Amino acid sequence: MNLDPKIAGRLKRNPEGLVPAVVQQHDTGEVLMLAWMDDEALHRTLTTGRATYWSRSRGEYWVKGDTSGHVQHVRHVALDCDGDTILLKVDQVGAACHTGDRTCFDADVLEIAHP
Amino acid sequence: MNLDPKIAGRLKRNPEGLVPAVVQQHDTGEVLMLAWMDDEALHRTLTTGRATYWSRSRGEYWVKGDTSGHVQHVRHVALDCDGDTILLKVDQVGAACHTGDRTCFDADVLEIAHP
Repeated sequence: MNLDPKIAGRLKRNPEGLVPAVVQQHDTGEVLMLAWMDDEALHRTLTTGRATYWSRSRGEYWVKGDTSGHVQHVRHVALDCDGDTILLKVDQVGAACHTGDRTCFDADVLEIAHP
Repeated sequence: MNLDPKIAGRLKRNPEGLVPAVVQQHDTGEVLMLAWMDDEALHRTLTTGRATYWSRSRGEYWVKGDTSGHVQHVRHVALDCDGDTILLKVDQVGAACHTGDRTCFDADVLEIAHP
């Protein structure tokens, strides 16, 4: 099985063949994390309803929650206007972040110096 | 002026020296777009309160809204747990997308085939 050629034809991949996926909690709107997909990861995500990424550090497909239990049930998938970013709206079970935080953006807030 | 070395030390950049920035409307939670920042763009964003990116297509800094009027007033900035993604919460004036859509993810929704 392969990604629908009509979708594959719209994707713009980086030199590693990957596209960033922004992952958002479908009801609260929290941005949970950013991960990376190749064509196969997007295909698996669309056909299984389970968020599936390419792990750049481990060099393998990664079904979110398979080891942690912190599954992402996919509710909505969209490409952006340039085909170079994916937005996933999911129902996140438990913590999205491997640190145990709900989102990967909870711990390191930067100060804005208003001029 | 340069980016605070304590922040620069936590950033993990891609081979082009860039980090993806997820841009979200601060009150509604809409994910508006994804853009790219280098250290200088992040520095300018934090010190001016105006979202500033590196345009990969034009090879120049890009203060969002300078030509379109569709300014992004920055309300919140955070790094993710790995330091390789930035989350910006902004107050977006008008359309975030160059197509005129409110967000860059409005036009190309993909079908999920629930198994």
